[in-house]
Amino acid sequence: MPTNDLMEKIVSLCKRRGFVFPGSEIYGGLQNSWDYGPLGVELKNNIKNLWWKRFVQSREDVVGIDAALIMNPKVWEASGHLSAGFADVLIECKNCHKRFRIDEYENEGMKVHTNESIPGLSNKSYILGISGSNTIACKNCGTKGSLDHPRKFNLMFKTFVGSTEEASSIAYFRPETAQAMFVDFKNVLDTMRKTLPFGIAQIGKAFRNEITPGNFIFRTREFEQMEIEYFIRSTEWEKHFEYWKGEMIQWMKDIGLDMKKVHEFEQPEGERAHYSKRTLDFEYEFPFGQKELYGLAYRGDFDLKNHYKEAPYKEEEGEAFYPHVIEPTWGVDRTVLAVLSSAYDDSDPEHIILRLSPKLAPYKAAVFPLLKNKSELVKKAREVYNMLVHSTSSGHAISAIAPIAWDDRGNIGKRYYSQDEIGTPFCITVDFDTLGEEKRGSLSAEGGSSSGGKDTVTVRDRDTGKQERVKIEKLNVFLRDGMR
Amino acid sequence: MPTNDLMEKIVSLCKRRGFVFPGSEIYGGLQNSWDYGPLGVELKNNIKNLWWKRFVQSREDVVGIDAALIMNPKVWEASGHLSAGFADVLIECKNCHKRFRIDEYENEGMKVHTNESIPGLSNKSYILGISGSNTIACKNCGTKGSLDHPRKFNLMFKTFVGSTEEASSIAYFRPETAQAMFVDFKNVLDTMRKTLPFGIAQIGKAFRNEITPGNFIFRTREFEQMEIEYFIRSTEWEKHFEYWKGEMIQWMKDIGLDMKKVHEFEQPEGERAHYSKRTLDFEYEFPFGQKELYGLAYRGDFDLKNHYKEAPYKEEEGEAFYPHVIEPTWGVDRTVLAVLSSAYDDSDPEHIILRLSPKLAPYKAAVFPLLKNKSELVKKAREVYNMLVHSTSSGHAISAIAPIAWDDRGNIGKRYYSQDEIGTPFCITVDFDTLGEEKRGSLSAEGGSSSGGKDTVTVRDRDTGKQERVKIEKLNVFLRDGMR
Repeated sequence: MPTNDLMEKIVSLCKRRGFVFPGSEIYGGLQNSWDYGPLGVELKNNIKNLWWKRFVQSREDVVGIDAALIMNPKVWEASGHLSAGFADVLIECKNCHKRFRIDEYENEGMKVHTNESIPGLSNKSYILGISGSNTIACKNCGTKGSLDHPRKFNLMFKTFVGSTEEASSIAYFRPETAQAMFVDFKNVLDTMRKTLPFGIAQIGKAFRNEITPGNFIFRTREFEQMEIEYFIRSTEWEKHFEYWKGEMIQWMKDIGLDMKKVHEFEQPEGERAHYSKRTLDFEYEFPFGQKELYGLAYRGDFDLKNHYKEAPYKEEEGEAFYPHVIEPTWGVDRTVLAVLSSAYDDSDPEHIILRLSPKLAPYKAAVFPLLKNKSELVKKAREVYNMLVHSTSSGHAISAIAPIAWDDRGNIGKRYYSQDEIGTPFCITVDFDTLGEEKRGSLSAEGGSSSGGKDTVTVRDRDTGKQERVKIEKLNVFLRDGMR
Repeated sequence: MPTNDLMEKIVSLCKRRGFVFPGSEIYGGLQNSWDYGPLGVELKNNIKNLWWKRFVQSREDVVGIDAALIMNPKVWEASGHLSAGFADVLIECKNCHKRFRIDEYENEGMKVHTNESIPGLSNKSYILGISGSNTIACKNCGTKGSLDHPRKFNLMFKTFVGSTEEASSIAYFRPETAQAMFVDFKNVLDTMRKTLPFGIAQIGKAFRNEITPGNFIFRTREFEQMEIEYFIRSTEWEKHFEYWKGEMIQWMKDIGLDMKKVHEFEQPEGERAHYSKRTLDFEYEFPFGQKELYGLAYRGDFDLKNHYKEAPYKEEEGEAFYPHVIEPTWGVDRTVLAVLSSAYDDSDPEHIILRLSPKLAPYKAAVFPLLKNKSELVKKAREVYNMLVHSTSSGHAISAIAPIAWDDRGNIGKRYYSQDEIGTPFCITVDFDTLGEEKRGSLSAEGGSSSGGKDTVTVRDRDTGKQERVKIEKLNVFLRDGMR
């Protein structure tokens, strides 16, 4: 299958070039656990920083928080996560005792009778009964008719806080970021004196004890979310829902997702969480299929009512009331995967190009000396490199955005290919022309608009392959303009 | 006690102005759990971003990773964390069964006989025997002679991965960030092709099931670390140790710590982890006492030898070998607390000033219209505000660094005090002078160097109280220069 092939290629590139490594790999890994490597952490941080600047720092109506990962268990009682609702429904083989998700058998004639929805758990409804399992063989041991009736297993990671392992010391790692914004709502309101509409944003980890995680970083047991709980008057929910829908679409465009692969999925009434009047999923055509990327939900006043006995919001005139909530949610790891999938271009299999948005690229530029063994070239290239990394006095501090790569191995062609594969938007070469020694040879400026000369360098564009001569003193401005 | 009083004042300011809230507060909290509020998350992110830019992005010899929080349990076997070593030694009251740390009774005549050191666990040595406890009363129930002999309790948070709670599915949330750098060492080496000396850096959460956390965000069960494992040749360890010591001191100066309150503590041989030839703690005089802020350790080749059966490092010529490690560690939450403690100034109790380094301040500036009910003033002030938030075309994008506050409540004096309390370095006021309506009154430029006039604003400095008139078009440059 070509699509799975693409997935393998992306996983391979990620491992080979330091984007994502299998977690604990030297110990045989840990099922579907992944570590972000040197380039991956830059890509992921660029996504998070861009999001934070855009949706928190440059907006007056959104403030951020960063809450503890372990919350008081009463939070999860109130939110409903401790009840049977927030659970995986699993079937166990009576012979080998391995457990499976129901959907692993959906294509084999097992019928699932849906009559109970599980709030907050994807688009699916489950029941506690199945039929047609008598003729189905266990995928592990092969025994026929051994699959038992489904049971629910809570998805939260349980731990023990304090020195004893008693029921009273049980606590859970948060299964979502959202509840922290509701629990801290009153504290934020009192300190920041915001009036409706306003939002509380958070970027942070959440944990779900998924039985069958998979598809690389798409579904993992620990994952990172970027989320806003946007508090509004109930009468205005449709307006705000449309607004955030637009913001999410614009975000996807701006980070360079292939918008032909983005699809909207309106969750029908029977599949939505019971408190939601509307839930819109943005699905992306990942290499392994079309799956949820982001979500946008109108949660009503369900959450604040769960947590606050008294209405927590009041303006100068009027009664206290429970604000309603529009919740746009972005998965960080899924964003990384969608960005990589959109950017991966191996139309020339010998020359892989990662067409990342320059805003997200791990390196903003790479600097090369034309030859490694010419000390004048290396010295000058070092000057250019240091200027780009450290220059802040000019006010054009590219270094304030991201790091610059240095490469002096192999020939220029190999270096271009190497940088293309990790998405570096610009390669800067210092040659003899730069030194003012034009006779000794320099890179030709293929299609470049500027003329060469002393203190100019060749800047080569990743996407067009076009080269142009740029004055060293104009490099910062050139790169900054290229970051837009 | 004046010092504890200071702690209370800082905690109170943090709650009142949105830096730090008690975690899960509406449910009565969770012992010593804290959430960063809107201003706290900005302060904390500024610290983390500054550190990352300085020690990762602007250095060729350090690369970052971001590893999973749950690692294969074999990691903790190899590192020694699963053995009895990584544990709290507790004494239990035989009557009420409450458990205590030994040091809670150190001042009451209990003698602790030290004959076994606990690697990796602070500066202390413990033994499994105590004497003199017969006459000591339990601090909980008051029974005399009820304190039992000490026992060890592992400090790692245990959880269960997968669908069963069996021994085979036990996993732990990482108790430190360091091991991820060792486990990923080979993958980083292979992908980034670094040669010694080079470092792997990480910012991330770690978890310790402390029995008695406390002192606000100083000791919490989940905490964030900024850490570098710097790989070197064993013969050069002293040179690199001194280098990183200097880097850590310079960092503390640059973030504005009160260096008179920073003290170096050389761990003597008996108190160091057994594999460390030298460990230096930087201690800070917190309001509740002088305690560890940062640590610098020479770990030898202990960790890489634990994890790699074969020597993992080889250069073109020569045998493979195990690099040695210098480990500088910075606690994020402790940095926040030390920064706040250094910055807090209530020498005028009616006028609290948070003298934060401008680089770290949650808001870089605040913009005010002189009067709230004059629409021309509000409109002009909005223009200034929007310029500062959104201007990127000038290349002086202050907005790329941090958000700008807006305030139009009360009078100018109250707004100044309000911004001083949260550390905003500059307050910018748009008055009638700005509009070119000088006759109608404007803020006097006390000691200001520039003359007023149309399209100038009053900029008031937090620390000096000095006001000067600045042209609107020069504001970005003015603020950028003030951020240094």
